Amino acid sequence: MRQENSTINKLETFFSPKSVAVIGASKKIGKAGNVIFSNFAQNKRRGIFKGEIYPVNPNEDSVLGFKCYSSIKYIPDDLESIVIVVPAAIVKDVMKDAVEKGVEVAIIITAGFSEIGNHEYEEKIVEIARKGGIRILGPNCIGVFDSYTGVDTLFLPETKILKTGDVMVATPRPMPGHMAMISQSGAFGAAALDYLTGQQIGISKFVSFGNKCDVDESEIIQLLYNDQKTNVILLYAESINEGRRFMEISRQVTKEKPIVALKSGQTEAGARAASSHTGALSGSDQIYDAAFLQTGVIRARNMREFFNMGKALVFQPPTSGRNIAILTDAGGPGVMAADECEIRGLRIKKLSNDTLSKFEDLKKKKILPEFSTNLNPVDLTGSATSKMFEYGLRLLLDEPNTDGIIVIGIHHLPAIEEDFVDLIGNIMLEYRKPIIGCDIGETEMAIYIRSRFEKFGIPAYPSPEEASQAMVALVNYGLYLKNIGCLEEYLKRFDEKIKLNLKKV
Amino acid sequence: MRQENSTINKLETFFSPKSVAVIGASKKIGKAGNVIFSNFAQNKRRGIFKGEIYPVNPNEDSVLGFKCYSSIKYIPDDLESIVIVVPAAIVKDVMKDAVEKGVEVAIIITAGFSEIGNHEYEEKIVEIARKGGIRILGPNCIGVFDSYTGVDTLFLPETKILKTGDVMVATPRPMPGHMAMISQSGAFGAAALDYLTGQQIGISKFVSFGNKCDVDESEIIQLLYNDQKTNVILLYAESINEGRRFMEISRQVTKEKPIVALKSGQTEAGARAASSHTGALSGSDQIYDAAFLQTGVIRARNMREFFNMGKALVFQPPTSGRNIAILTDAGGPGVMAADECEIRGLRIKKLSNDTLSKFEDLKKKKILPEFSTNLNPVDLTGSATSKMFEYGLRLLLDEPNTDGIIVIGIHHLPAIEEDFVDLIGNIMLEYRKPIIGCDIGETEMAIYIRSRFEKFGIPAYPSPEEASQAMVALVNYGLYLKNIGCLEEYLKRFDEKIKLNLKKV
Repeated sequence: MRQENSTINKLETFFSPKSVAVIGASKKIGKAGNVIFSNFAQNKRRGIFKGEIYPVNPNEDSVLGFKCYSSIKYIPDDLESIVIVVPAAIVKDVMKDAVEKGVEVAIIITAGFSEIGNHEYEEKIVEIARKGGIRILGPNCIGVFDSYTGVDTLFLPETKILKTGDVMVATPRPMPGHMAMISQSGAFGAAALDYLTGQQIGISKFVSFGNKCDVDESEIIQLLYNDQKTNVILLYAESINEGRRFMEISRQVTKEKPIVALKSGQTEAGARAASSHTGALSGSDQIYDAAFLQTGVIRARNMREFFNMGKALVFQPPTSGRNIAILTDAGGPGVMAADECEIRGLRIKKLSNDTLSKFEDLKKKKILPEFSTNLNPVDLTGSATSKMFEYGLRLLLDEPNTDGIIVIGIHHLPAIEEDFVDLIGNIMLEYRKPIIGCDIGETEMAIYIRSRFEKFGIPAYPSPEEASQAMVALVNYGLYLKNIGCLEEYLKRFDEKIKLNLKKV
Repeated sequence: MRQENSTINKLETFFSPKSVAVIGASKKIGKAGNVIFSNFAQNKRRGIFKGEIYPVNPNEDSVLGFKCYSSIKYIPDDLESIVIVVPAAIVKDVMKDAVEKGVEVAIIITAGFSEIGNHEYEEKIVEIARKGGIRILGPNCIGVFDSYTGVDTLFLPETKILKTGDVMVATPRPMPGHMAMISQSGAFGAAALDYLTGQQIGISKFVSFGNKCDVDESEIIQLLYNDQKTNVILLYAESINEGRRFMEISRQVTKEKPIVALKSGQTEAGARAASSHTGALSGSDQIYDAAFLQTGVIRARNMREFFNMGKALVFQPPTSGRNIAILTDAGGPGVMAADECEIRGLRIKKLSNDTLSKFEDLKKKKILPEFSTNLNPVDLTGSATSKMFEYGLRLLLDEPNTDGIIVIGIHHLPAIEEDFVDLIGNIMLEYRKPIIGCDIGETEMAIYIRSRFEKFGIPAYPSPEEASQAMVALVNYGLYLKNIGCLEEYLKRFDEKIKLNLKKV
């Protein structure tokens, strides 16, 4: 039985220990014990990690200039956290020492436990830990990365050396941000950090829990619920422990913080693979669908959608309805966005007569292009200027039947200038309706336009369908919150947070 | 009625005219007539465009050092092609002059015809052209880009100047390649060129046909069928003219060259928007689905899939069945790929007993990792080395029940080195089964690994689901070809082409 009296405070020690020892710290480049100790040493030198650090290895006198201990027993000070990378067979001895030393938490990176059938090893360390009051993350995991406190137990170095001798960025750590990610798969977790770094999406905490012999996804979610730095939680899982508890916790958390889940093993083949990967049964996919729906967890259909939805929820408030308007300077991409919205259950309704007559009036005054269409999508045509985007957006935000806006600004067209983004960003602050941006292209200006959108707090996507999928997250989460009577409160808190963030730009 | 006796030869003049005049050529920077004439002038100077070029504008004596004519009547030599950017009202006069001059083809960039209700203008120019034997592309289009002949009528300059004075790459032209793209939407076409450039996907020809008052998608497809440089055809359409003719032509073309279609306007809102955009009725989406299925046209569900599928078909042969094997060093991404395959109708079957025993044998000999799983996906685990990928891949290629392989090489893991790609690339040449690559990440090494895959002729994708979607294109096209008895011949031709391409690396 799980110890129900374990406090969130204790779990926080995983992310901000006053002292940490790396059991198996090494001088040998590339070894897990070298990478992990070096992460801590570097972050301490930079002033990010504030705790004490101790290398532990009976075969070394010092590692990276830090005095090395043959056992944690000989560390002269109190010790809150240990990171274990020594072979599976001796982990139980380390755990016994840790109990004696009064350690609070242990991150066991070491593999070779229940995932390969060594249940005995795993049961033994759990038994020792429970008796001694130590909480365990892992084993068979990559542990924790906290962008704010500098805890970084990832044994995958930021750079890798090619056979040519060239060095390359391989597993970068993302910048600080407000998205937390939990991953059952360590490799996918590392790859996700790389993806998020490249997409310039910041994160607060990253947790890989591997075999989850003690701490599981539900407890981590509860911890993130209380974490001031985390606004959105991303969960990659192949199986979920104790479904009822997960549902209880999720139901509580999603009242205040959105959870986006990528649950793989949906199909027979996927489930078979997942079962061999983590040793857990995936369970029927329909059950997961129903559980997510009931508890307000947004389910992503694939990897890209997972991150795209997370980004949308970090930047923008949820909607209070499913009516979306699309503003575009390019007909084709407008049609694509409309298709995806309707396929995913959003509504692209015609505009009200009042808005239509305002629109026609602006056309008559030549403020909007003569041939722009007043349907939804509103197509400003290729002659759209930045100013026309401003007028068009205001019309759509004022339209009572619209809950959110997708703005597609294809920068290739001749009249549009980069400041259309600024105009949109400024208008957005006057309203509560979410805005999603889109520009297509993979070279200089497209990347610049999307990053300019994001400086204004507008998540921007490189294809119309991805923009629509991001809106799906805002709509589905908003409707859930509205249904349980929590939308207004969420929006109030969101406004405070967003204003705080936007000042920083 | 369309002139059925117009030959493909005449249409080829759009892409390689011996002489071309730009009607409305201008000295004024940023004007369409300046950008287009300057494209030709630059490509002529670089030796890419081999024909003669003539600026036509009554208000200029010369443009970019070329003698300017007040009318095409005064051009002293024969004239094959004209590009028209003057206002809609005077296009008919230009067309009359063109008939007198014996011009063969006209690309009418000018907007303001049937798309805004000016049917009379459009009918008039069509009437003049038909009588005079001139073929028209457009009006209301961005025309043609041919990476081999240097024809470039895109009025969107490669760079744009920001308000700060900084210059940025805005509408780059992709490198020469073997994918052709046809787009009903000019803006989407321009954005697509940007996307393809950034993704380093080369193209042969790009055609935007706008209102298609004369030449339509079916004729262009027929032309591309005969084009030596084009191996795969991408079609973006919101409506298709004369469905029966399109089906006839597609059925013929797809025997030898795959067509990937992104048909938008699938939903009610999308169709409404498409109708306002191009003035054409989209028709029922089910009808398009059925038409594509019957004629072997691969339908993409969204923009990313459109390009991803196109790239797969350029690089790899279609399969002869739907059984796919997945080889991975990371469990999670393997599960995601398996899910997407099964959802899309591919089969991830268990391996044969023969392969399983070979696999177990390699494990016993410690050639494969002790805990790698012999299910499908085959998970080599995080301790996979490049050599293990080689052994694993050979097993799967030799497996008689496997038609294609997805290789997921997450570079973040410690033991894998970049040369796993080379080993895979070399083995691939010994077999006929297609291979799709995947590595996740958006920073240096992930991008490097994917581009290294592609140097070996293996299309590589940044998410497991996209890799599976690429395989969907190879499977669906292969099954279509097999069904109509054309697979063997296609594979023979493909082998010749691929070998030619791979020598170039």
